[in-house]
Amino acid sequence: MASQTSCVRVALSDRAYDIQIGAGLLATAGEFVGCCAAAKHYVVITDGNVGPRFADALCESFASLEDARLDVLSFTAGEASKNIGSMQRLWEQMLEIGADRSTVVIALGGGVVGDMAGFAAATFTRGLPFVQIPTTLLADVDSSVGGKVGVNLPGGKNMVGAFWQPQGVLIDTDLLASLPDREYKAGLAEVVKYGVILDEAFFAYLEGCVAPLLARDPAVLRQVISRCCQLKAEVVVADEREETGVRAVLNYGHTFCHALETVTEYRRFLHGEAVSLGMLCASRLAEDLGRVERRVTARQSDLLQAIGLPIEVPKLDGDALTAAMLKDKKTRHGKLRFVLPTCIGHVDVVDGVSPDRAKKAWWPK
Amino acid sequence: MASQTSCVRVALSDRAYDIQIGAGLLATAGEFVGCCAAAKHYVVITDGNVGPRFADALCESFASLEDARLDVLSFTAGEASKNIGSMQRLWEQMLEIGADRSTVVIALGGGVVGDMAGFAAATFTRGLPFVQIPTTLLADVDSSVGGKVGVNLPGGKNMVGAFWQPQGVLIDTDLLASLPDREYKAGLAEVVKYGVILDEAFFAYLEGCVAPLLARDPAVLRQVISRCCQLKAEVVVADEREETGVRAVLNYGHTFCHALETVTEYRRFLHGEAVSLGMLCASRLAEDLGRVERRVTARQSDLLQAIGLPIEVPKLDGDALTAAMLKDKKTRHGKLRFVLPTCIGHVDVVDGVSPDRAKKAWWPK
Repeated sequence: MASQTSCVRVALSDRAYDIQIGAGLLATAGEFVGCCAAAKHYVVITDGNVGPRFADALCESFASLEDARLDVLSFTAGEASKNIGSMQRLWEQMLEIGADRSTVVIALGGGVVGDMAGFAAATFTRGLPFVQIPTTLLADVDSSVGGKVGVNLPGGKNMVGAFWQPQGVLIDTDLLASLPDREYKAGLAEVVKYGVILDEAFFAYLEGCVAPLLARDPAVLRQVISRCCQLKAEVVVADEREETGVRAVLNYGHTFCHALETVTEYRRFLHGEAVSLGMLCASRLAEDLGRVERRVTARQSDLLQAIGLPIEVPKLDGDALTAAMLKDKKTRHGKLRFVLPTCIGHVDVVDGVSPDRAKKAWWPK
Repeated sequence: MASQTSCVRVALSDRAYDIQIGAGLLATAGEFVGCCAAAKHYVVITDGNVGPRFADALCESFASLEDARLDVLSFTAGEASKNIGSMQRLWEQMLEIGADRSTVVIALGGGVVGDMAGFAAATFTRGLPFVQIPTTLLADVDSSVGGKVGVNLPGGKNMVGAFWQPQGVLIDTDLLASLPDREYKAGLAEVVKYGVILDEAFFAYLEGCVAPLLARDPAVLRQVISRCCQLKAEVVVADEREETGVRAVLNYGHTFCHALETVTEYRRFLHGEAVSLGMLCASRLAEDLGRVERRVTARQSDLLQAIGLPIEVPKLDGDALTAAMLKDKKTRHGKLRFVLPTCIGHVDVVDGVSPDRAKKAWWPK
């Protein structure tokens, strides 16, 4: 029942595309993809969790399109698969099934699938069009806008990749119904992030609707996902390749988050959980630098806790965390760069923070 | 002695760059790179053949640039290294030496180095600027214009890659002095190709100067390399991402060539040797289709033979060659596409050639 559909335009001149958001949209995927990326051969890339649940419905939605051949490729679910080895298998499978320059890639899954399928699309025969059908809240609000695709290296997250924009994104909010609670909540961390960095009114709206949000109310979901996509789209259009610094605001909490994920080998936290902790670390660092009032951190902490996200960093090796931070892509010649709030709704990019200063922010005084 | 330097502009709007061509230019590399891609950290990527010969001279040319740190990474020379495994080692080494988003990559070597270093640059932290210093004739006239970078899969050449333009290209014709004879001649195959596809006068010029060309006369080399770069630049500017078909003319002989290389596992022929044979196959196919006169093939065959390039395809499995052809990136849904001459100086892209027809062209009747 695609009763109400929202559409967000990502206005990237010759790489512009639409994001459609609504309940029941998976049934219209064939039509949607046929419009924004018509082809005779599609490769659906998915994982072992998502494929069994949604790949059949996706393929069925293509039934009315004559002559369209669909192949489905699947890899083991989880961040641990986001590596060069799995990518090489995907490339080789694409070659085996006869993918060529006129093939279109469809990413069906969460953030890892979007990153992997997107990088496969960006690089197979030097670039194929692709369409994203995200199936997690995190992917809905984060990976579906921006064109960042890629894989991890053993020594660092997202170190290999590309900027590769999709031809279109289809978000079916019904797919979130079966999402495990922990994963759903992890996605809400990025939702909260948009409020902190760009939109106080949205943050206040979230504070007021934690209950329906946790109940996955379809109308609230459509509203929330649309607003996040819209906010991210504005930022990405202003700075597609992260060159002017505008786009950097999206990294709020992420320097801490990536260090946390690296040190715990991507096993202990879901990405959103690490983002939740990372935002609070960044806010504490901002406090320590005299850039923000204590209650700004408290307000974030309260909302994240109400949602059920972690708000306390466990005991970990501080030196290992610092070392991981210094290897982050956002590092410039050994000096740390952070995105720090001045209030709810505004952040600044702050350069040249010493590693020792950053280290104090992991745990409250 | 950079007595005379030619400059070719590749006018790709916001990705425009210059190619400088002349004798002794390696000594000016630091200055050149400092102009077109200033940075504090450079990663020189080279191979085990080229590195020991030229890396020191390259690094020395940076001596006057204060604060510039250079790291040199090297991999085993040869097409066999152009794979995902070697690429992964490069990515990991870049991470280890602390390359970040403000690092610039310098490709020092032949085509394989350019392709590998270029793809490393295109993908490390989602894209770094890079500069090319080609050291073979083939790389001078082929890989230095066009932005095609990437690696092979076991099942197909150049199946994974990107379009990634350099910030500048420096061609020192003196570096060709030490090039083995066989490799130098292989480079001349691509030189001949430019004459066939785009410029009869240039083809005639080549017919008239085989002796000084084989003697590697510096003035003739500068002339020939500049003309090839110019011709390729015009094509690439008209069709950067191989979308309109214009750029396809550069693939003259290459469908046959790639099949030949795949079936012989990249071991038997240098790329240029396979191009020499591939052009003659394509010309014979054009004859068979009534598109060109026999003497056009003969004129190419004569020039290639005078240079010392192979003109007869050895006995190989015709079915294996056809199968390899059908896996080529230029294939569209099982139908073969060829670039075929109508005369010296003009080619057409011809679609829908049957595999059986193509098969007849491997050997003269």
